[in-house]
Amino acid sequence: MDQHQILQLDPIIHAPTRLAILSILITVENANFTFLKESIGVTDGNLSTHLTKLESSGIVTIEKTFKGKKPQTICAITDKGRDAFKNYLDQLEQIVQSQKHKK
Amino acid sequence: MDQHQILQLDPIIHAPTRLAILSILITVENANFTFLKESIGVTDGNLSTHLTKLESSGIVTIEKTFKGKKPQTICAITDKGRDAFKNYLDQLEQIVQSQKHKK
Repeated sequence: MDQHQILQLDPIIHAPTRLAILSILITVENANFTFLKESIGVTDGNLSTHLTKLESSGIVTIEKTFKGKKPQTICAITDKGRDAFKNYLDQLEQIVQSQKHKK
Repeated sequence: MDQHQILQLDPIIHAPTRLAILSILITVENANFTFLKESIGVTDGNLSTHLTKLESSGIVTIEKTFKGKKPQTICAITDKGRDAFKNYLDQLEQIVQSQKHKK
């Protein structure tokens, strides 16, 4: 039953801002906070909230470092995050396919 | 930029319970409340909240009628809802495809 499959979509990944964050992090070794913010087009506070949620779920790591004297926040997807994201995309694909067959 | 596309996903449809409701209603002329509840596996209160949200967005209609002496609640997707749901699925498909090409 795909209705149950829909309800099993990982709520940590399903939120659009977090999905947008992960769609960037999946492609790079890491990305800094400012790059993510500008790529996605969200506020500092909004990005920060979603990154913290992803970090507390073990999906991303957030590291505060310095580039010269300038502080920067470096984000990366974890192996667990990579697996969770791929699994989510597979589920999404199955949902889309099952819906298309209904049309 | 698919990050912006992700943020444009219709929040009314994106919530998993509402997505599950619409995945049923898209296939039938109408469905009663009990059928939806049992198919999706949610509580009365939860289903009711999500149906009301879909109704106030013009995506479903909710009609209270009687079957004999037994009251029943009949739900159906509107033309606007049908278009919005198909559009949402197209966006989802594009997101999945663009992510797959990144792998």
